[in-house]
Formats: sequence, C-alpha cells, structure tokens
Amino acid sequence: MKFCSSCGKDVVLQIPDGDNRQRYVCQHCDTIHYQNPNIVAGCIAEHEGKILLCKRAIDPQLGKWTLPAGFMENKETVMQGAAREAMEEAHAAILDMQLFSVISIPHISQVYMMYRGTLLDGFAEAGEESEAVGLYHEEDIPWQDMAFPVVIESLKLYFEDVKNGEFRTHYGDIVKHDDMRLQFTRY
Amino acid sequence: MKFCSSCGKDVVLQIPDGDNRQRYVCQHCDTIHYQNPNIVAGCIAEHEGKILLCKRAIDPQLGKWTLPAGFMENKETVMQGAAREAMEEAHAAILDMQLFSVISIPHISQVYMMYRGTLLDGFAEAGEESEAVGLYHEEDIPWQDMAFPVVIESLKLYFEDVKNGEFRTHYGDIVKHDDMRLQFTRY
Repeated sequence: MKFCSSCGKDVVLQIPDGDNRQRYVCQHCDTIHYQNPNIVAGCIAEHEGKILLCKRAIDPQLGKWTLPAGFMENKETVMQGAAREAMEEAHAAILDMQLFSVISIPHISQVYMMYRGTLLDGFAEAGEESEAVGLYHEEDIPWQDMAFPVVIESLKLYFEDVKNGEFRTHYGDIVKHDDMRLQFTRY
Repeated sequence: MKFCSSCGKDVVLQIPDGDNRQRYVCQHCDTIHYQNPNIVAGCIAEHEGKILLCKRAIDPQLGKWTLPAGFMENKETVMQGAAREAMEEAHAAILDMQLFSVISIPHISQVYMMYRGTLLDGFAEAGEESEAVGLYHEEDIPWQDMAFPVVIESLKLYFEDVKNGEFRTHYGDIVKHDDMRLQFTRY
C-alpha cells in the first residue's frame, strides 16, 4: 500500500495513537488503513464414501488437487461462502453442512474453515477455476499432488473421524518455522 | 474506496473478467482491490463459575458491557488473537483455551470466534479500551446493558453448556432482516 484509498495522497507506516502496531496512515486525511486476515471457506463433500476433489485450473498450484474452497465474500455467512465455492468450482450442491475444521495459517494471514456435507445426487462437474473434478475414496486420493497442506490436514482429520464413527469440529494452526518447515498443531 | 492504494489513480466498481461480482478496479494499473469479511476473536474467561466482562471505554457502544474481543490481526492465529484481546482489554491471561463459537454476521461482514478458557489467578483489570472489568455469575450479568447481540448469544450458549455439563463448538449466524430485526440461527 502506497496511497490512501480515500483521498489518493501518500500513506506512511506508523503506530497510530492508542494502537500498538504499525498501520498505513494517510498523512492528508488521517485515515488508518487496517489490514486483517482472510477467511477461506470450503467443503468436504461426501458421496457413497468418496470425497469431491477439484483439479485447479488457475494459479497458484495449477494442476494440483484441492477441496472446493475460496475467499469468503462480504455480506455472506461462512457456510454460504463454503456452499458458493462448491457450486462455483464443481457445480456441486452440498446438503447437511456441518462445521468441520478451523485452521489458522498465520504466515499467510488466512483462516481455513471447512464444512463437511453430502453431495446432492453425487453430481459434480468442473467449474471455471477447475480443470477436472472427481470423487475419491481415501486410498485413491492423489496425496502427492495436493495443492495445499491445509487441505491434506483437513482430509486426514476427516478420515480419522470416519474411522472413529464420530465427527466433531476440529481446530488448530499450521505454522511456518524459520527453517521453512510447516507444523500442524491441533487443539 | 475512491483511489488505488498501489498507484493513487481512480478506481471504479466493475466486474473483473472471470469474476461474478463488482470489485474496485484501478483504471490505470489494473489492480483489483478485494474486500473481505473480518474475524473478531474473543474470550469467555471463567473463574470460580464467574465470567469476565469488560465495560467499553470506546465507541461503538461506549459504556456497555462485552466479552474481551477485537479484530484478529495479520500474522497471528485466531487463538492468539483471542488471547491478545483478553490481555489488552482486561490484562487477563487465559488458560486451556478451547474454540467455543463461530458466528457469522453477514450484514456487517464479520465472523465472531469465541474461545472459552480459565482466567489465570482470577486476575483482571481494565485495559486502555475498558472503563471497568468484572467477574459475573450468570444471574448477575448486566443483560440489558450488553454492547452486542453476538455477545449475548455466545454467553447464552455458554451457560446452556454449563448446565448440560458438556461443552462443544457451536456455530451459527445472526442475520438482519428487512424490518431490522436480528435473527440468531444455530446449526
């Protein structure tokens, strides 16, 4: 950020009065421009024991597999965002949605919120941002070709719950260490 | 938003290629400025059956009571954000934090995420944004002087779980209807 989105003049990084961290502040109109984490909302959609995956047709991670998910939009609920992403990326309608996981990824300032549910009529087809979609049993999931670690961790939690015969809402974080290693912690 | 924060030139509202909703787009450098919901992270901190409340020293809702909570910051986890807010607003350290509630409020594009935990040493005192803090049994909570409906709903869910002897992670939304009435739905 270099310019004030309200008045177009220069902004500078400074700690506003009463605050304790640097913000972009306009030197002309005094507007403080806060920057905050984004929510990524998505679905673990099940049909006859198989899970819906999408092959990405866009960067980042073009050609890799993921769960239908994307940035939550203003004026929607998290659940609406998750359902919207399943429809946009896989033309899929999800029933009986339950909050499954909440995973913070602080080094990219994102919080992933996944809902589990059942895929209506077992139907899905590639949306604009997908090259392909498919339904996969646990053992057939292309684990080596997944787009994002958070998707792998969410699916591992899901199949754990399937085996235990009981679902709950999981939460945790994926932290990037100084040596670039990612660590998933569940609480 | 009137100006591009990257180059300082005019932005206009338009639907970018491949998108399906209006965004602020710079006519000069083509930057798309997305706007997304914010997370509010907070705590239900318990000590000897009482809950920590803060009396707000700032607008909105100056003088009303609330749970310690505030906007999640970049580069932190939701849990860290909740703990930070308890420290800033009530100089309170919270132990054994568990995700308690996730409530979307689409008309203000916010998602409240409350953690429950125990208040270390039962200690709290007013931080900069609080006029006062206090520990309240359910029957002594100033229900008529609470700052935000989402705080009332979170506390009602909490005391329900206390009575049931079992805590779980709750989620739902507070929707504003055309007649301005707020409706809380839990899933």
